[in-house]
Amino acid sequence: MSTSERLIESTRELLWERGYVGTSPKAIQQRSGVGQGSMYHHFDGKPDLALAAITRTAEEMRANAELEFGGPGSTLERLAAYLRRERDVLRGCPVGRLTQDPEVMADATLRRPVQETFGWLRGRLTELLTEGRERGELDAALDPVATASTIVAVLQGGYVLARAADSTEPFTEAVEGILGLLAAQRGPGVSPRP
Amino acid sequence: MSTSERLIESTRELLWERGYVGTSPKAIQQRSGVGQGSMYHHFDGKPDLALAAITRTAEEMRANAELEFGGPGSTLERLAAYLRRERDVLRGCPVGRLTQDPEVMADATLRRPVQETFGWLRGRLTELLTEGRERGELDAALDPVATASTIVAVLQGGYVLARAADSTEPFTEAVEGILGLLAAQRGPGVSPRP
Repeated sequence: MSTSERLIESTRELLWERGYVGTSPKAIQQRSGVGQGSMYHHFDGKPDLALAAITRTAEEMRANAELEFGGPGSTLERLAAYLRRERDVLRGCPVGRLTQDPEVMADATLRRPVQETFGWLRGRLTELLTEGRERGELDAALDPVATASTIVAVLQGGYVLARAADSTEPFTEAVEGILGLLAAQRGPGVSPRP
Repeated sequence: MSTSERLIESTRELLWERGYVGTSPKAIQQRSGVGQGSMYHHFDGKPDLALAAITRTAEEMRANAELEFGGPGSTLERLAAYLRRERDVLRGCPVGRLTQDPEVMADATLRRPVQETFGWLRGRLTELLTEGRERGELDAALDPVATASTIVAVLQGGYVLARAADSTEPFTEAVEGILGLLAAQRGPGVSPRP
């Protein structure tokens, strides 16, 4: 890994473990094994490094989602693949958790990648649902915009419930619940479940 | 307010503003205007006070939910009243936010009221959906257990999305989305929407 990569990865780890306020430039240097001079050669300081780390995390989340959104199968199959993908549920969502970091939320620059990622996710799901409706896979009465927000909320809320229960069970239930409701929205283009 | 009440309310405010680790016995005394001796007369210490504060918050959440669950109207009307109730969305859920407090989650005693509240909420919604299905208001194919978890997750995830967007809009969208999906689950006992 390059020096710059080591700094970004160490900052991601520290942000995850300690939050923004607990992530000092010194801790980043210790974790990455990069000296102070070299760190300030690559990055202006902690806000700049945090922005790079958060942007990286957001990009990974998008790329992972796009693997399933752009994958094979019907709309419902792709949604099921996305929702049922293996996740480290008790660890939480790397992007969603940033909304609970007061310093990240209070800084417009650091908040932007978080805001944009959820905006992108809702937009992309709206596209998918609209496409499924046009193909007759989903009922014409389905509201793609509202349903897209519901799907993203189910995942984010599923993490909260799993953390409260210290168990993945409510996350899995919530996912299966939304998939059941979506399956009941099958349009004329597909035959009902056997 | 009694001394004990003042201590509990001040602890609730401080837990909300600063989290468990940032809530010192000294800060509770200053906020409540209760002296150290009197505080330790009423409570064993910070963990005891935090438990009383969290238990109070959890009880309020249950009581508020029960107002709508036990209210008038069909199952779908009661669910809509619950989901659309006025909330301080950008402030977040007082119980859900505790799942992001590492010290609360790491302490089994402090975590218990959080866990129990979500368990109760999922159970109560399961009852409501089961009843709606039995009355023919909801489709027989609806899974009450999974759908109950989905509904709770939509609210909790809606808070996360609202915070990321610094807007109540995604919360409202997510709620309308789940209500649309539930409305499409109307059973033979009720006529479809005009």
